[in-house]
Order: sequence, then structure tokens, then C-alpha cells
Amino acid sequence: MAVASRIQGTPSPVKGVRFAAVQAGIRYPNRTDLVLFQLAPGSQVAAVFTRNAFCAAPVQVARLHLQEAVPRYLLINTGNANAGTGARGLGDARACCDALAAAASKLEETVLNGSDILPFSTGVIGEPLPVARITSAIPRALASLQDNDWMAVARGIMTTDTRPKAVSCEVSITADSKVTVTGIAKGAGMIKPNMATMLAFVFTDAQVERTLLQEILGRVVNKSFNRITVDGDTSTNDSCLLVATGASGVVVSQEQDCSLLEQGLERVFLQLATELIRDAEGATKFVSIRVVNGVDSSECLAVAYAIAESPLVKTALFASDPNWGRILAAVGRAGLKDLDIERITIDLGQTRLVEAGGLAHTYTEELGQVEMDKEDITVTIDLGRGDREETVWTSDLSEDYVRINADYRS
Amino acid sequence: MAVASRIQGTPSPVKGVRFAAVQAGIRYPNRTDLVLFQLAPGSQVAAVFTRNAFCAAPVQVARLHLQEAVPRYLLINTGNANAGTGARGLGDARACCDALAAAASKLEETVLNGSDILPFSTGVIGEPLPVARITSAIPRALASLQDNDWMAVARGIMTTDTRPKAVSCEVSITADSKVTVTGIAKGAGMIKPNMATMLAFVFTDAQVERTLLQEILGRVVNKSFNRITVDGDTSTNDSCLLVATGASGVVVSQEQDCSLLEQGLERVFLQLATELIRDAEGATKFVSIRVVNGVDSSECLAVAYAIAESPLVKTALFASDPNWGRILAAVGRAGLKDLDIERITIDLGQTRLVEAGGLAHTYTEELGQVEMDKEDITVTIDLGRGDREETVWTSDLSEDYVRINADYRS
Repeated sequence: MAVASRIQGTPSPVKGVRFAAVQAGIRYPNRTDLVLFQLAPGSQVAAVFTRNAFCAAPVQVARLHLQEAVPRYLLINTGNANAGTGARGLGDARACCDALAAAASKLEETVLNGSDILPFSTGVIGEPLPVARITSAIPRALASLQDNDWMAVARGIMTTDTRPKAVSCEVSITADSKVTVTGIAKGAGMIKPNMATMLAFVFTDAQVERTLLQEILGRVVNKSFNRITVDGDTSTNDSCLLVATGASGVVVSQEQDCSLLEQGLERVFLQLATELIRDAEGATKFVSIRVVNGVDSSECLAVAYAIAESPLVKTALFASDPNWGRILAAVGRAGLKDLDIERITIDLGQTRLVEAGGLAHTYTEELGQVEMDKEDITVTIDLGRGDREETVWTSDLSEDYVRINADYRS
Repeated sequence: MAVASRIQGTPSPVKGVRFAAVQAGIRYPNRTDLVLFQLAPGSQVAAVFTRNAFCAAPVQVARLHLQEAVPRYLLINTGNANAGTGARGLGDARACCDALAAAASKLEETVLNGSDILPFSTGVIGEPLPVARITSAIPRALASLQDNDWMAVARGIMTTDTRPKAVSCEVSITADSKVTVTGIAKGAGMIKPNMATMLAFVFTDAQVERTLLQEILGRVVNKSFNRITVDGDTSTNDSCLLVATGASGVVVSQEQDCSLLEQGLERVFLQLATELIRDAEGATKFVSIRVVNGVDSSECLAVAYAIAESPLVKTALFASDPNWGRILAAVGRAGLKDLDIERITIDLGQTRLVEAGGLAHTYTEELGQVEMDKEDITVTIDLGRGDREETVWTSDLSEDYVRINADYRS
């Protein structure tokens, strides 16, 4: 099950980025499971990784390589997360980077090192990475590098996703200079530690200095991937990359106001993040939880997550049941100090559901049902005590979610 | 579905407590839905209530009455939570107390006030309490007060529970003085804000001063009801009462070492709490999460709850899948500072599952399967960095949980 996608159009090439997706037979035969990105020399790379203390070997290696060099290639495999694999896992991740560096050195007629590669893995935990299968597929990947078929690489990083996610936009920086932003993402539970990691790779041909790029990435992730939740779980392998190749020749800096680029990036990140929710495991609803008029961002988020992660609210959403008591009870347990339940209003779409601590006078079951029967549902909680606002996106909790996650390893 | 109960034997009467359960037709016909407790004059009552900011009318009224007087009666209805009912709900709860006080005054030939009564409600949220049905059933309840059939009142407070929960024990305070502790509880989701509140009423005939009784209650609740979780949700109506009638004439005070009584109470509270989990909505497993060798209690609990409330761990438990990656990932996201995943061990029953950040060398799928196929599962996480320990009890997450909670209002 999944909610209908909102992605439209074909993603545009980004100058300075080439890519390939091949079959390496990592876990299943006849499945595209190895993806390669080649970045033009001089590209800048910013990254955020999982905050889980149990983090996979490729995440540890990628963090290290980012400190040592400016990445030239990204190497992504599905079918095996290379997590919980100890010292061997670190060696395996490095071996793959070294193999790619060696093969790419011949191709580029220059000397590349393992540290010029960032590795990413997603798939089953605790099994050794089949290094030989990956290294023997690398030459084929290098030979098929292209810059156009984004859907092939978006499909190549999928695990339990039911469809590829790739989004693109053009940003006019000045009257006569444009840059392109294109990104792909995967992840169907947010974020399952077993087989579905959240991975996102976003590319622009703008020229951006690395420190600024990292700042921008932090801000846009905070408004997109950090605002979605399926089950509150976070994975060992979550990674999000932002690459600026500079190949457009258009310079974007703090002084030149980077806000136009940032807005474009925000659109792409947000669409990728919400597409993950639309394709969440067992999802039948796409739910926006808007908390408005809070004292600060943190209390708005506390309320939004208490609702978004309540199994009772989520099962009610699955049942298309406008069960306001469950929503109000989730608000009540969010831990806000001196919360006056009487001042809170809750709207379902355009319909007022709760006011003065109880069911709104204008509310009827029919009005509520009209809203709940929609595939896209917006719940707005007005705390009535400030001027801050936050939105979190989530899915419902269906029997299919349980089925998918109970059956996964079998 | 439910896991097999561990309750054995018949609960004993407690001197100074009489009770009755009658049919009032509050929501469904032919259902025992009104329970009354009569407490001997001079009884002391300690209470803890939901911390949810959205708390029901009877909770607000009970809190107030506890400050104004020493309770003589407890009045408990199912079928309607009298929550989200605003000012009218407060008036309705008071009206029921007043009606009981008037009827009981005649019976006892003394003057009782509404504030001598504590009201409790559980059931659907947001609908007005059918006060007339309750008040008209009160005389029948008063006429049938008895001190023996605990199962009748345990059954009378049930909502989605599949079976009544009543537990009893005798405590020898000195060589020739004994007191009795008997308690009942209900609640099948912990704790559903719609129709399943957690309610617990525990009685002893020991004589205990009120401040001490409240201290003891705080401690035993913290080791029992505050250590169980089904879905992380807390209700608007949760209430837990400890009554000491003093009718045994056995005085228990701080000086005379109240630890013997406290141990007996702990046994009763813990058994009631774990019975709620055994009867949790859709439960097929009773799961103990033991976190040992932590730096302090709070980090042990953070880890235990991260595991106990992870939908991914819970669905794996439902599938009897020894999915150690999900458990380790839950440990990793519990927010512990400087956590060294390599030092953690995880045992499933007597079988070592995880060591050195990966699967234990001695582990086999067969050994894991033997443990997972059991109905009672203990997961022990050794943090290897301190000497504190905490245990939390939970259930698995089954398709039936979703079905029950999605279908509830229909």
C-alpha cells in the first residue's frame, strides 16, 4: 500500500554529475543493487548522518573520508547494510572504496585514493558485505556512467520502497544565471534499522563554498527529513548528502544572498521527504500535523510528534475515524508546562473538531467523515499561547505495517 | 488475544471494605457497569492520577474531594469516561457524588457530603455522562454491598479487558499480627484515551497515616504501573488508589518499619500491572525488558522504553523473530551520551544474542528461535558501564492491536 505520489515531470541533469546503476547480485539476482555517482573535480560535499549510536561501517568510513579528502565518487549498495559487522565491516567498506578508486584512477588517468570515495549501504543488518560481488561490478558501473536517467539510480537505491523518488527544480540566481537542483531518496519506514535506511542524495551545479553548503544542508534537512516520522525509529545507516559541483559556473555565497538557492533546495528536500511518507510501509494516508501559536518551536514539535507517533491516533487515521479524544489526549501528554486544554482548538482540514476542551459546537460526524475519508489529511492544533508554528508529516498505522515488519526476514 | 494469566487463588476480604457491582445501562444493556466501594470511617486514602494535561472531569473532582474530606465511598462507572465534557462534565461528576452521599446518609444514619465520595469513569470520551442512569442504580448498589466477591467488582470495572484482575496477599507485620492486601485493576491498552483507562484500587486493613500511605503508594506505583507500556499512550482518566482502612487494628508506621507492608503492596501492584500487559490489546507475548549495569536509573529506563515502545521491535516480537539489529538500533537511539555499542551485550532469555556490536559467536538461529517461541520473553541489555538496573514490561505489536484500535468506535 502507498499513498499516491505527487512527483511530476522528469528530473533534469546536473552539470558535473554522472551516474550509473548496475546489477551486482548482492542479495537477490536480477536486481539493480549498486549505484555509482561521479562528481566533477572541485565539487563540494556536505553531509548529515544518523545520530544513532549504533552506526553502520559505511557511515563511519564516509565520515572519516569526508575529513580526509573532497569526494569524487559515491558508491551505494542495497541488499546489505554492513551494520553490526564490527572491524570486518570497516575493512569491507574500505575495500570497496579502494577498488573503486583503483578502477576510476585508470579511467580518469589520475591517482584516486579510497578516501576520495564515500560508501553507503542499506539492507540486512549483521551479515558480511559481499565485497567481491561489489568490486567485480564496479568496472561495469564505471563503463555505463551517464547524466540523464535519474529514475534508474533512484530505482537502484530502493529496498522496501514501492517506487523511485527523484525530484528536480531550476533556480534563477540572477536574471541570466540559472542552476539546477536534482535529488533522489529512498526509505519506506522512517527509519527501519533492518532493511530500510533513509538515504538522500541531492545535487546542484551551483558553486558553493563547503562551510556554507553544510550550513544550508543543516537548515533544509531540519525543515524536511527531520520533520517526518513513520514509526519513530531511526536507522543505523541514515545519510543525507548535498553536492555542489560548481559546473554551472554560477557562484552562490553568503554575501550574494544564498536564499534563492536555499529555497530551491528546500522545495526538493521537502518533496523527497514527503514522498517517503507517501510511500511509507502500509501507509493509506498522508498526514500533516500542523501545530500553530505555540510559545516556541520546541513545544510545537513536542505536540506534533506526540500526535504523529501515537499508535492510537495512527490507527484511528487508518480507520478514517475522527477520534478527537485520542488527538487531545496526545496533546495532553506532550509534556507542555501550564497547558490550558480549554484554549486549544483542533481542526481537521477546514472543519473545526475541538474547542473549549471538547467537541466543537459546529462539528458533525458527517463533516468529520468527509475530511477523514481523504487520502491527504491535515490536522491543525492551535495552542493559543504564542506565535510559533511547526509541521510534521506522518502516515497512518495499518495492519499492513505490522504485516510488512513482522514478515520482513522470512 | 491475550497471554495466559498468572493470577492464582481467590482474593481475600479486607476488613473495613464492602463493595457492590450492578447494571446501570450506561452504554450497553445487561452489562455490569457501576461499582461501589464503601470504606470504614477513619480509612486513609492515597491516590495518583494521570499526568495528562487533558484530564477527565472525575479526575478533577476526585482530586478536589481528596483535599476537602476523607473519602467514604468510591463510585466507578464504565461505558463513559466523562472526559472532554467541559463544565457540564464537572457538574455531572458532582451530581453523581451528591446522589450517592444522600442515599448513603440515609443508610448510615449520618450526614455525608458529595466531597466524601471519589468518582471514577472510564469509557467513551466526549459524550455527556448519563447521570440519571447512574443515580437510579445507586440504591441497588448500596443494598447489595458485600465483602467477599472481588471478581464481581473486578469484572464490573472492565472495558476492553478480556478478563478480570484481582490479586491478594497476607502480610505478617509481627509474629501475631497480620494484615490483608487485595487489589483490582483494569486497562488493556496502556493507556488508551478512548475507551480503556488504567484504573487500580488496592485496599489494606492495616492502619497507616495518610502522608506515609501516599509516600508508599508513590514508591510502589513507580515500580509497577509506571514500568509498563503497551503503546506509550496515557489516558485522560488513569487513576490508582491505595486505601488503608485500619480495621485490622494493626498499626504500621515509619518508626515500626513499614517495609513488610510495602513489600506486600509491591507484590500486589506488580502482579496487577503485569496482568494488564498479559491482557494487553492484541498481545501474544509478555515481554520483560531488563536493562542492567547502567550508570543511573534514568539511562536504564531510557533504553528500556526505547526498546519497549519501538514498533519495529514489537512487530519482530510478534513474529517471534530474534531481530537483534532492531533491538540494538533502539538502544542506539535512546540518547545515551558516550555510549560504546561494542561493550553492550543482549541476551534473549539465557541465550547471548549480541556482543561486541554484532551477533554473538555462540548464537544460532535455532537457539534464538527457542527463546522467541515462548509466550514469556525476557530481553536483557547489559550496558557494561555502571551498576544500576531497571525493568520495564511490555507486549508485542500485532495486527490485532491495529484491528482493535481501528475498529473501536464502530
